Amino acid sequence: MAPIRLFCLIVASTCLCAPFCTSLAPALPSKRMCAVRGGAAPLAAIKAPPAIYEAVAAAGQKKASNSVDDIFKLGVISGAQIGLGAFLAVSIGGNCPGLASANPGLQKLVMGAFGLPMGLLMTLVTGAELATGNFMLVAAAYREGMTSARSLWKSWTVSFLGNFTSQTFVVTFVRGIICSYLVAIAVYMAAGAESLEGKLAAIFFPISGFVAMGMDHCIANMFLIPLGMLRGAPITIADFLLKNLLPVTLGNIVGCAFCVSYGFGSAFGKKKQKIIAA
Amino acid sequence: MAPIRLFCLIVASTCLCAPFCTSLAPALPSKRMCAVRGGAAPLAAIKAPPAIYEAVAAAGQKKASNSVDDIFKLGVISGAQIGLGAFLAVSIGGNCPGLASANPGLQKLVMGAFGLPMGLLMTLVTGAELATGNFMLVAAAYREGMTSARSLWKSWTVSFLGNFTSQTFVVTFVRGIICSYLVAIAVYMAAGAESLEGKLAAIFFPISGFVAMGMDHCIANMFLIPLGMLRGAPITIADFLLKNLLPVTLGNIVGCAFCVSYGFGSAFGKKKQKIIAA
Amino acid sequence: MAPIRLFCLIVASTCLCAPFCTSLAPALPSKRMCAVRGGAAPLAAIKAPPAIYEAVAAAGQKKASNSVDDIFKLGVISGAQIGLGAFLAVSIGGNCPGLASANPGLQKLVMGAFGLPMGLLMTLVTGAELATGNFMLVAAAYREGMTSARSLWKSWTVSFLGNFTSQTFVVTFVRGIICSYLVAIAVYMAAGAESLEGKLAAIFFPISGFVAMGMDHCIANMFLIPLGMLRGAPITIADFLLKNLLPVTLGNIVGCAFCVSYGFGSAFGKKKQKIIAA
Amino acid sequence: MAPIRLFCLIVASTCLCAPFCTSLAPALPSKRMCAVRGGAAPLAAIKAPPAIYEAVAAAGQKKASNSVDDIFKLGVISGAQIGLGAFLAVSIGGNCPGLASANPGLQKLVMGAFGLPMGLLMTLVTGAELATGNFMLVAAAYREGMTSARSLWKSWTVSFLGNFTSQTFVVTFVRGIICSYLVAIAVYMAAGAESLEGKLAAIFFPISGFVAMGMDHCIANMFLIPLGMLRGAPITIADFLLKNLLPVTLGNIVGCAFCVSYGFGSAFGKKKQKIIAA
Amino acid sequence: MAPIRLFCLIVASTCLCAPFCTSLAPALPSKRMCAVRGGAAPLAAIKAPPAIYEAVAAAGQKKASNSVDDIFKLGVISGAQIGLGAFLAVSIGGNCPGLASANPGLQKLVMGAFGLPMGLLMTLVTGAELATGNFMLVAAAYREGMTSARSLWKSWTVSFLGNFTSQTFVVTFVRGIICSYLVAIAVYMAAGAESLEGKLAAIFFPISGFVAMGMDHCIANMFLIPLGMLRGAPITIADFLLKNLLPVTLGNIVGCAFCVSYGFGSAFGKKKQKIIAA
Repeated sequence: MAPIRLFCLIVASTCLCAPFCTSLAPALPSKRMCAVRGGAAPLAAIKAPPAIYEAVAAAGQKKASNSVDDIFKLGVISGAQIGLGAFLAVSIGGNCPGLASANPGLQKLVMGAFGLPMGLLMTLVTGAELATGNFMLVAAAYREGMTSARSLWKSWTVSFLGNFTSQTFVVTFVRGIICSYLVAIAVYMAAGAESLEGKLAAIFFPISGFVAMGMDHCIANMFLIPLGMLRGAPITIADFLLKNLLPVTLGNIVGCAFCVSYGFGSAFGKKKQKIIAA
Repeated sequence: MAPIRLFCLIVASTCLCAPFCTSLAPALPSKRMCAVRGGAAPLAAIKAPPAIYEAVAAAGQKKASNSVDDIFKLGVISGAQIGLGAFLAVSIGGNCPGLASANPGLQKLVMGAFGLPMGLLMTLVTGAELATGNFMLVAAAYREGMTSARSLWKSWTVSFLGNFTSQTFVVTFVRGIICSYLVAIAVYMAAGAESLEGKLAAIFFPISGFVAMGMDHCIANMFLIPLGMLRGAPITIADFLLKNLLPVTLGNIVGCAFCVSYGFGSAFGKKKQKIIAA
Repeated sequence: MAPIRLFCLIVASTCLCAPFCTSLAPALPSKRMCAVRGGAAPLAAIKAPPAIYEAVAAAGQKKASNSVDDIFKLGVISGAQIGLGAFLAVSIGGNCPGLASANPGLQKLVMGAFGLPMGLLMTLVTGAELATGNFMLVAAAYREGMTSARSLWKSWTVSFLGNFTSQTFVVTFVRGIICSYLVAIAVYMAAGAESLEGKLAAIFFPISGFVAMGMDHCIANMFLIPLGMLRGAPITIADFLLKNLLPVTLGNIVGCAFCVSYGFGSAFGKKKQKIIAA
Repeated sequence: MAPIRLFCLIVASTCLCAPFCTSLAPALPSKRMCAVRGGAAPLAAIKAPPAIYEAVAAAGQKKASNSVDDIFKLGVISGAQIGLGAFLAVSIGGNCPGLASANPGLQKLVMGAFGLPMGLLMTLVTGAELATGNFMLVAAAYREGMTSARSLWKSWTVSFLGNFTSQTFVVTFVRGIICSYLVAIAVYMAAGAESLEGKLAAIFFPISGFVAMGMDHCIANMFLIPLGMLRGAPITIADFLLKNLLPVTLGNIVGCAFCVSYGFGSAFGKKKQKIIAA
Repeated sequence: MAPIRLFCLIVASTCLCAPFCTSLAPALPSKRMCAVRGGAAPLAAIKAPPAIYEAVAAAGQKKASNSVDDIFKLGVISGAQIGLGAFLAVSIGGNCPGLASANPGLQKLVMGAFGLPMGLLMTLVTGAELATGNFMLVAAAYREGMTSARSLWKSWTVSFLGNFTSQTFVVTFVRGIICSYLVAIAVYMAAGAESLEGKLAAIFFPISGFVAMGMDHCIANMFLIPLGMLRGAPITIADFLLKNLLPVTLGNIVGCAFCVSYGFGSAFGKKKQKIIAA
């Protein structure tokens, strides 16, 4: 129908146009080309388009050269991050019946804005292994002859399996661990940002997310539960300390120390490098 | 009517004013001029106005010197990016009946804010060829004598045809490919940003957009579908794996590896340069 | 009444306080003063307060030394930019009856947020001449003895007239040109930003604005009109191509090539400098 | 009651814990300490925590060494800035009856977000003297032995009186001057920002604020009033020029040239330094 | 049930895949690896993933080497910051009955966005000691052999007790002190940001927060109360000065000078270092 006819029209026009154009060699030297982006100004914080492609291929090469062990561990981490993002999207955007009936477009916008962008930001900043990211990055490295087909296959399948594995955990995860995972990853990512606005960008989604998901954080509970007690909630100090603060704190320690510090440490730590070097 | 009388008034005032003013040569040396922007402070991340114009002309010269082949391919890419932006605008802003009746201004604002800014950001960061961008950039290069009329004509027509070609595809595109195109372009653009807030800016619109458009992402589905299964949705594991995960993953691979990595690789890759050099 | 009595009280207190204070010479050396902002850290992207004033005076000197011709042309450009901002404010904030009745404060906020900030950002980034800006900048240069009273008068009156002239055009402007002016200025300003987040800041308001104002963009129409045709809108391909795409594209070319590239080129271009040098 | 018992518990725990802990000298050298923030990466745009305190004390020393005259003038400026912020908060957040009844928390959020952050940003960027800022900054300098008690007293009282003085003016201020003060301060602050996103941050609140407060700006009026005339408003050109444009423009000149350029010039200008040097 | 079967499937697939993959040594050299992030571009404001982990471990080592005294004091500060964040979340998000009934997801989003992100940003920027942060940071240092188990135990317990101690204060705190604490911390954090947008990020949450919490600020009261008096509120000047301005100002001095300047000074100040050195 219409698209087909449109397409024919375009192909025909292109054919007519091509002979005319191909005879046009770039007639002028392009010495000033480098002034476009980051040449004259010594402070570009963005790469020029060809440099982005180069960086993409180099990142793919690096990812393809990782060990199966590291790809799987970092794949589990990335899968949990994306899963948490999807969980957040369901908690916020999936819970707006008023918007969904009056303005479905806004409900979709909220669903999109709060959830997966957090998950992908966590994966990109921490260097975790996301299969759909590798589908693109390693393919670029392969196209440039910078990695082999076997490495591409390894990267794609192992990161996919790692991603898959962690999803099952997220679905059945303990609440206190999820919360402290998000607090710890916020602190972890903020350590990678070199500006105040970058640190704010690092912590905004994970921290607002754990509150929105209704998770427990031991330090915030120290304020909220005594506040409730002052206002007459029937909670004894022993209840507060033993039934809430103790288990939540232990869950927070597991989430912070084990899931974040030991997770990334097993992939990036010095200790490991000594074991390899030995 | 009024505007005409206003205009006459202005012309008259200007004529009266001009003789007085033109006799005023700039009386003072301007040694400190360079301190205005980026002079004293060594860290300006913005160009001064004349430098912006220079950068614009140089970018136009560079674009005019591209081959017809590259302009067309990058024009198809840019057209798809703008088309995806328009699709997003229709999905979100075009789907807000509540806003449209009570506050039409807000509905227009949402329509504008979520859609084409994403499309243009993708085009500018990745260096794709948008005809309306070339109308301005190459015109500046032509004005400065940095390119020929034939190159200007080539750039304008080929990028226009490239833009046109891809629109037809977007209209009839496969859902899984659109989604993974957006995920892959988010990762691709983030590779070009050198700050955490820049990476967040790179991924926010494409990722929130694919969710808002209701597209499928294999890794997110790994979480969402088992969650539904746990809650009793009548889906077997085989259904999940074969009817959803397999086709979505294959679509994602096409979107990521082919549309992004091979698309930009064919324009910016090293491999191509070797073929040319050979 | 009350303010007068308050004022008397303050004057009296100040008089009582002054003798005590003026005897207090700064007793301590201030070697570490420079560490406050940008001293120790080599990366300040903000000027210290006295340096801002210096930059303001230097910018005023530069503006005062411009030719009448350039001030007028850049004044016309700035006037159109501010006029477009006011037009946008009327289109969005002025079109929110629901907000205006339930929450007038929010309606004012929307009116303020979307419109003039876009206009002023365009003027500041592109270096156009806004009379109210010059009232401040050139006054500072005059105060510092960096420009003459005649130059101040020239700068104020010519930029004011330039601003005035363009308003009449905006009121009666052709739709396709406004749109492509906004697209082109977005690309133009983005060329001046050296970070991905800066490029996003550059394009967000102009692009969301042209959509919110209901303007036509040839590339977006390539997607939207065939989409409507596929859904059965009674538009023939000839209608689409000849009655919409052709005139919109021509308007876009005028807006991009003439209004932006030639507008700024006439003030900042190299070609002009050669004419002057000859 | 509960808090007291909680507190006793904490003191007791601390006492139990302290002897154990104090015996723990830091056992490991901390050579890599500097890598935490801004060490390895040469581009930190944020200071490390101890450096922030140092910068705070140095800023306090600098403020304590200012002359009474400068502190008072810059105190009047800061007071007006905070007063304008409070005025904006009342205009927007104080004018949302719909929010206040359905969602009081959102009404408080709007009240907080649009108003005082603008005021304090203006004060911090322009280096004006705010008493509550000095309460903290100069106290730090005094603690470090970098200033005397008399200078601390001088800084606190004179800035407080300066802040107090200007409030009375803001309450009874002329509309056209407030508006152009905000336009001029936006341009002034933007001159201090070295990135496009910083310039946007500089102008967003003052410009959106003056519109939200319903103030007059001569250049925007050039567009809005002829637009109304075209639509049939009963305004003659003479009315427009003499009864609106002339008085608003004169008010804008006072606001821009006098309140901003001469205000900051009297504190930071070169001319003054020559007078002092002579 | 389903998750268990999914998990078995994954383990099986991984086992099948592993032998194939582990035989794949990275076949290609990775000389261009460093170009991925911050290599070619000299301006990265973000650390690469392994460098983030290194920075995290180094920060943990530094925290573990702090004295018990400093950890406790900075723990009290951080606890108050998190408590203020929780207080803000309750004041805004906990006070939106309209949202909570129509769109519970949005109410959760508001609850998350305004409150704890402010608290954590304050803690990270000022270098205070948060137990959940230390759970992650010091665990990384311990894993890398950069600190001892005793130091880890010291850091975790003392910061936890410090956090706990301050919560009780926040619950019963004086209003004027909270407000000026937030104003002072805003100024303090802004001193650490080296860009205008960073300064805006520093002040936005604390300043909008104190207004939203309904706190008193002496300088803003100078404007708001006379405004009320002008409009006929039955307040005498003596009432204003003695019953409001005097006590609020004294509370502001305590909050600014004592809680911020002396709090951080006792941990980071030079004076202290001299005492230690003596």
